[in-house]
Amino acid sequence: MSGPAPKNPDYATRVQASFARQGLMTTLGASLIRVSPGQVEISLPTSAAVSQQHGFVHAGALASIADSAAGYAALTLMPPDAGVLTTEFKINLLAPGIGERIVARGKVVKAGRTLTLAQTDVFAIHEGQEKHIALLTATLMTVQGRGGVSD
Amino acid sequence: MSGPAPKNPDYATRVQASFARQGLMTTLGASLIRVSPGQVEISLPTSAAVSQQHGFVHAGALASIADSAAGYAALTLMPPDAGVLTTEFKINLLAPGIGERIVARGKVVKAGRTLTLAQTDVFAIHEGQEKHIALLTATLMTVQGRGGVSD
Amino acid sequence: MSGPAPKNPDYATRVQASFARQGLMTTLGASLIRVSPGQVEISLPTSAAVSQQHGFVHAGALASIADSAAGYAALTLMPPDAGVLTTEFKINLLAPGIGERIVARGKVVKAGRTLTLAQTDVFAIHEGQEKHIALLTATLMTVQGRGGVSD
Amino acid sequence: MSGPAPKNPDYATRVQASFARQGLMTTLGASLIRVSPGQVEISLPTSAAVSQQHGFVHAGALASIADSAAGYAALTLMPPDAGVLTTEFKINLLAPGIGERIVARGKVVKAGRTLTLAQTDVFAIHEGQEKHIALLTATLMTVQGRGGVSD
Repeated sequence: MSGPAPKNPDYATRVQASFARQGLMTTLGASLIRVSPGQVEISLPTSAAVSQQHGFVHAGALASIADSAAGYAALTLMPPDAGVLTTEFKINLLAPGIGERIVARGKVVKAGRTLTLAQTDVFAIHEGQEKHIALLTATLMTVQGRGGVSD
Repeated sequence: MSGPAPKNPDYATRVQASFARQGLMTTLGASLIRVSPGQVEISLPTSAAVSQQHGFVHAGALASIADSAAGYAALTLMPPDAGVLTTEFKINLLAPGIGERIVARGKVVKAGRTLTLAQTDVFAIHEGQEKHIALLTATLMTVQGRGGVSD
Repeated sequence: MSGPAPKNPDYATRVQASFARQGLMTTLGASLIRVSPGQVEISLPTSAAVSQQHGFVHAGALASIADSAAGYAALTLMPPDAGVLTTEFKINLLAPGIGERIVARGKVVKAGRTLTLAQTDVFAIHEGQEKHIALLTATLMTVQGRGGVSD
Repeated sequence: MSGPAPKNPDYATRVQASFARQGLMTTLGASLIRVSPGQVEISLPTSAAVSQQHGFVHAGALASIADSAAGYAALTLMPPDAGVLTTEFKINLLAPGIGERIVARGKVVKAGRTLTLAQTDVFAIHEGQEKHIALLTATLMTVQGRGGVSD
C-alpha cells in the first residue's frame, strides 16, 4: 500500500468530530465528504448566502473550505493528542465560482514535525462538469500541550 | 491634501451598494464601518457561527472580511465603470481570533491600471484592547467591459 | 496528443534565447535543461556562491530558479509577440537545500489571457536521490505592445 | 524608548557576521547597510549580472535581498543561541526594477516564540528618487538546539 501512514488509527472519526465543531462550516452549509490519510474533501452548495457582489461564490468562502480541507488533511497525519492551527495560506483564484456546488480537495504535500505544507484544489461543479477555479497552499502547525487546542 | 484621489466622486456610495450585495458578509454578520479613498474597514462580531473547532474565529472568516476590505479599498480608486475581482491573496495568522469583535482595515499599497496591491491588517478587540491577529496581502484586478462584473 | 498547445511553434528557441539574456541565471550558474509546452526545468549546481549562512542553498537562489522555471513554462504557451512578467510568487521551503544540485520543475496550472498560474517543485539531488525541498506558486502576466517587454 | 527589545545585546555584530557568510549576497554584490532592533536594510547595485531578460532586476534577485532583510530583521530579536530559517515568503512585484540601486528594508511585524512574521519593502533608486517596486512578507522560524543552524 502506498500513501502516508496515519499516527492515529481513529483519524477519520477525529476529523469528523472536529469538523462538526467548526461553526463556520455549518454557517456556510459545507459538508465533509471524504477523509483518507493525507487527504480531505469538503463540499459547498452555491447560493446567495456565500456570494460576492457579482453573484459568484466569494473568495473568502472558497478560502474557508479550502483552508479547512488543507488543515484536516494535515490533521489525519498528526499524533492523537495534537491540534492543528493554520499559520498562513495563499489562494490563487483562476475563474469565478459559478455552478451548483464547490468542491475543495486538500492533500498533504509534506508533513513535518512542527509544520505541514498542504495544498487544496478547488473546483466548481456546473451541470456535471468540474472546473478548476482556485489553488490554495497552506502551512499548518502541529500544536501539542496547549490547553484548548487539541482537535 | 494627502492620500490618493478617487476617480469616482461617488466611491463611497458605490462601495456601500456593492458590499450590500455580498451575501457572504450578511451571512457572517459583517458590517462596513468606514470607507475613504484607498481605505476600507469592516467589522465582524465573534460568535460560534464563525468559529473553528477550538472556538477561535475561523481563518476563513478572517480572510473573508480581510479580502473584502482589500477589494473595496481598491475599488474606491477605480473608474466608475470598473469592477473589482481578487486574483490572489495570502494571509498570515499571528494569534488566535479571540474577543468580542474582529476589525479588518484594508488599504491600497499601489493602484495600477490593471492590478492593485492592497493590504489588510486584522485586529481582535477584547475588553477594549486591540490585538494584531492577521495580515493579508491581495492582488485585485480592475475589470472593464465584462458583463456582470461592474460593482 | 495531450498537454496544452503552444501558440508559438518556436516556443523552445524563444525560451532558450530569453533564458540566455537573464544575467542572473549566468551569475548563479543555472542552466535550462528542458523545455516543453507548459513545462520548463532549470538546474543549479550547489556551491558557497549561492549559499546562506549555514551553508544551505539560499532561499533566494531557490526562488530565483523556481521563478524562472514558472515564468518560462508560462511563456511556452504565450503568443509570439508577448512578453512575460512575474506579478507575484510565494515559496514554501520544506527542507534545507543540501546536495550536489538543485532542480526546479515549473509547469502551468492555468493559462489565462492576461494572467497565468504556474507552479514549480524544487528538488535537491544528493547522491542520486531527489528530495522535495520547496514549492513555488507564481502569477505571470502576459504583456503585449509594451516596448522592451517581448521575450 | 520605543521599538522591540533585542534579547541579544550583540545583535548587530551577529547579523553582520552571519550576513558575511551568505555566499549569495557576495555573489549578487549586496551589502548590509543598516541593522537596528527589528529592522535591517540591504542594498544591491543594479547590473546585467542580476537582470532578467528585459534588463530589469530579476524578481529572484529582489526576493533574495528582501528575504535576507526579513530574516535578519527577525534575527535581531532572537536569543543569542538561536538560528533563523525562512519557512515561506510571498513577494508582490509592483514595478520593474530599474535604476542605479535597489534597497530592501525589512522589519518585524510580530515576533513569536517559534515563528516571526516580517515584511520587506523594496525600492528602486533612480536619479535620487525612490520608487516602491516590491513587497515581501515572510515567516521565519527560530531554530534552537539544531547543529549547524545557529547564526
